[in-house]
Amino acid sequence: MNTFIEACQEAIGTEHVLTSAEDLAPYLRDQRGRYIGVACAVARPGTTEEVAQLVKLCQQYRVPIVPQGGNTGLVLGSVPDQSGTALVLSLRRLNRIRHIDPLNQTMTVEAGCILQNVQQAAHDAKRLFPLSLGAEGSCTIGGNLSSNAGGTAVLRYGNSRELCLGLEVVTPQGDIWDGLRGLRKDNTGYDLRDLYIGAEGTLGIITAAVLKLFPQPVAIRTAFIALESVDHALQFLTLTQQRCSAALTGFELMSSFCLELVRRHFPETPPLFAQTYPQYVLLELSDHESESHANTLLETVIAHALQEGIVADAVVASSLSQSSALWQWRERIPLAQAIEGKNIKHDISLPISRIADFVCDTDAQLKQRYPGVRLVTFGHLGDGNLHYNVAGPTDIPDHRFLENQQAINRLVHDNVHAYDGSISAEHGLGALKREEILRYKSPVEMQLMGQIKQALDPHNLMNPGKVL
Amino acid sequence: MNTFIEACQEAIGTEHVLTSAEDLAPYLRDQRGRYIGVACAVARPGTTEEVAQLVKLCQQYRVPIVPQGGNTGLVLGSVPDQSGTALVLSLRRLNRIRHIDPLNQTMTVEAGCILQNVQQAAHDAKRLFPLSLGAEGSCTIGGNLSSNAGGTAVLRYGNSRELCLGLEVVTPQGDIWDGLRGLRKDNTGYDLRDLYIGAEGTLGIITAAVLKLFPQPVAIRTAFIALESVDHALQFLTLTQQRCSAALTGFELMSSFCLELVRRHFPETPPLFAQTYPQYVLLELSDHESESHANTLLETVIAHALQEGIVADAVVASSLSQSSALWQWRERIPLAQAIEGKNIKHDISLPISRIADFVCDTDAQLKQRYPGVRLVTFGHLGDGNLHYNVAGPTDIPDHRFLENQQAINRLVHDNVHAYDGSISAEHGLGALKREEILRYKSPVEMQLMGQIKQALDPHNLMNPGKVL
Repeated sequence: MNTFIEACQEAIGTEHVLTSAEDLAPYLRDQRGRYIGVACAVARPGTTEEVAQLVKLCQQYRVPIVPQGGNTGLVLGSVPDQSGTALVLSLRRLNRIRHIDPLNQTMTVEAGCILQNVQQAAHDAKRLFPLSLGAEGSCTIGGNLSSNAGGTAVLRYGNSRELCLGLEVVTPQGDIWDGLRGLRKDNTGYDLRDLYIGAEGTLGIITAAVLKLFPQPVAIRTAFIALESVDHALQFLTLTQQRCSAALTGFELMSSFCLELVRRHFPETPPLFAQTYPQYVLLELSDHESESHANTLLETVIAHALQEGIVADAVVASSLSQSSALWQWRERIPLAQAIEGKNIKHDISLPISRIADFVCDTDAQLKQRYPGVRLVTFGHLGDGNLHYNVAGPTDIPDHRFLENQQAINRLVHDNVHAYDGSISAEHGLGALKREEILRYKSPVEMQLMGQIKQALDPHNLMNPGKVL
Repeated sequence: MNTFIEACQEAIGTEHVLTSAEDLAPYLRDQRGRYIGVACAVARPGTTEEVAQLVKLCQQYRVPIVPQGGNTGLVLGSVPDQSGTALVLSLRRLNRIRHIDPLNQTMTVEAGCILQNVQQAAHDAKRLFPLSLGAEGSCTIGGNLSSNAGGTAVLRYGNSRELCLGLEVVTPQGDIWDGLRGLRKDNTGYDLRDLYIGAEGTLGIITAAVLKLFPQPVAIRTAFIALESVDHALQFLTLTQQRCSAALTGFELMSSFCLELVRRHFPETPPLFAQTYPQYVLLELSDHESESHANTLLETVIAHALQEGIVADAVVASSLSQSSALWQWRERIPLAQAIEGKNIKHDISLPISRIADFVCDTDAQLKQRYPGVRLVTFGHLGDGNLHYNVAGPTDIPDHRFLENQQAINRLVHDNVHAYDGSISAEHGLGALKREEILRYKSPVEMQLMGQIKQALDPHNLMNPGKVL
């Protein structure tokens, strides 16, 4: 092992190969503090060529590799296992914006760029890079692509996969594949790009990417909508999509209990409605014409929905500060539920047409089996993606309620499967859901995935124990 | 071989296994009449299970399989080679629309559905399926997906890949992979869907798909724009995208010579401008608000472009019939150039920022080396996709000029490569460009593709001689 570490030091410089327990600690700990792995070292290469050299050394010494970006993942995808044999390969020093091409609406960035910096660089070039999610201040674009991250703008712009035109990848053999193409159309062979996106580092290491940019909107409008049920929210979604088409850039659902938690733990959040309603939607429109066109469009669609009885009440932001006050309600839900106590989280997606029935059925089953259970349900309704989180009754200590975690996961995930949904909408499988997925994916699909993994990484050195 | 054919007949019924030369003929001939292959038989299964049975038999007898839809491809991807050993497996009898889910905005269709029927079924459900291309009356959705077809609406809605959420595939082993998921977000493993899309039947057979639907626009407006140069067209594209965003659904470039050909061979096409201009753009906007909003948007953007000197002149259609008259100019270009004579076709894409320079350079090189050469350049400028076709001088017979085909392909494709483009934007590789691509793709990329092919289809029975 020492020889291997010396070889790594020679390849990229001693100061970029960390070996002390203190230096390693932040790279080994999972984002939510649930897990601490063990590694032989952390290597921080500064160029794609250095990544390739390290991977070649890992092949030579048969050392497993755990690629890591911002280490903000939620499914134990970027931390090593307990064996202590793995090298954590941090991409954080590959953080250059290589090129921006405003006319082609693309930018070429290295994997270690922080998402927020990518957004900012696009903005400085008068363009929009629309990927946006809670961890954007610390996650990296390489991690976003490796996990096909979603976030709040998927409804309009798609997942990370749809935002990427080309990749540079270091293969498990330490070769560099230069697929940094900035083309909207290219039908010259297998779609390697999309195979690497979402593979969670198990087929190679994404070192750079060509990202799609978009024109910046000239006006953004938000509204908070009160509704009687999830079914009403879905009717409102259909109406808004029909009327606003691609101007609809956000459609976030929140249950009454989500807002109650925010009120309880962030009482300074400006009040919304005089009474409470069962469900709420935070609506965002992005307009490319004018402020006044955005206002008219938003007012027309809300007026129509109120008239039809689809919507019970609405608050429209008339300034940027009012708009961010509305977004606070949505953004504070995860924080408020963390303060409230532990809960059992599910990142699920469903066909949009089946969401209302799924929520109704699953809520009822959980309430029957675990009386007093509290459901913190919110998410990106426009994508069919719910964060369906289950908190225990107030009179039972968290640690006691968490004893039901496995049984509750089973109930929720079995229902998701029965309603043709996915048990990981945007977080990936990592090490956390790797066993769970075997229950839901067919042997044929697992076999196809296994054949690809075996073909590209025959020694199983790329992020072993994740996905497969 | 007789035993094999008998086994096929037993599996799917004698009447669905064609063996006579007369019956086979239409399945063996390439769309453009350039090539006629040989097959041992044509099988026309009626269900996915029958496809799976046939593939199992092919594995057992080691018979190569050529999957075929409408057989409208342009790169010899759906016809067998000369060996006579292959079975053509026609998907045309798998032509059921299995399910439409308007609320989820999806439809589940079998591979053999004609594209136009898919569009119509979506329309009947008050939804839009936006894939649209010349062959839509006879191509099948399975072929569209296998070749990741593009067409005229890619600018707004993406290629076939972006229009598909889930697949059903028969693997090379004859297993059925049911990946018919109708989810916008699903991060549970490798992206097998996108690997099969665009693989041209070399990794398995797509038998059904879940397609994305969209709200129907309430108004569609078209305009014909005259411009001084390709560079002006690109400036106009940027302006229109900034102003109209996703309402921009078509942006087709045509050179002056393209219109001259249409005028010559279809003199009844209604005239456009009093004088000629070097370049033209056919612009299409789709509006979800109202007819009047569509008019205002279109008029505003054109007025602004005229004022800025980006656009030289414009004709706006004020009725559906005027709109289709404008589209005739675009649609008749391929027909007019066929009447005019043979030409050497290139389906290329480029970064949008490099198109003007590419066209300028390549035109000049061709004109210098082949004096009198005539360039028929048109295409989907908004996607960076040009049909860059080269016709010979009027005073040289076609067959003489076509002797330069290889040299001209080389010149054009080398330039495309030098400008970071693709030599097959939307048609695929098939058997036609399989050798050519080796010149432009890196050995690393070819090796990755080869490893995947070898892993999934170790006996190389799936559409051999195509892509790889």
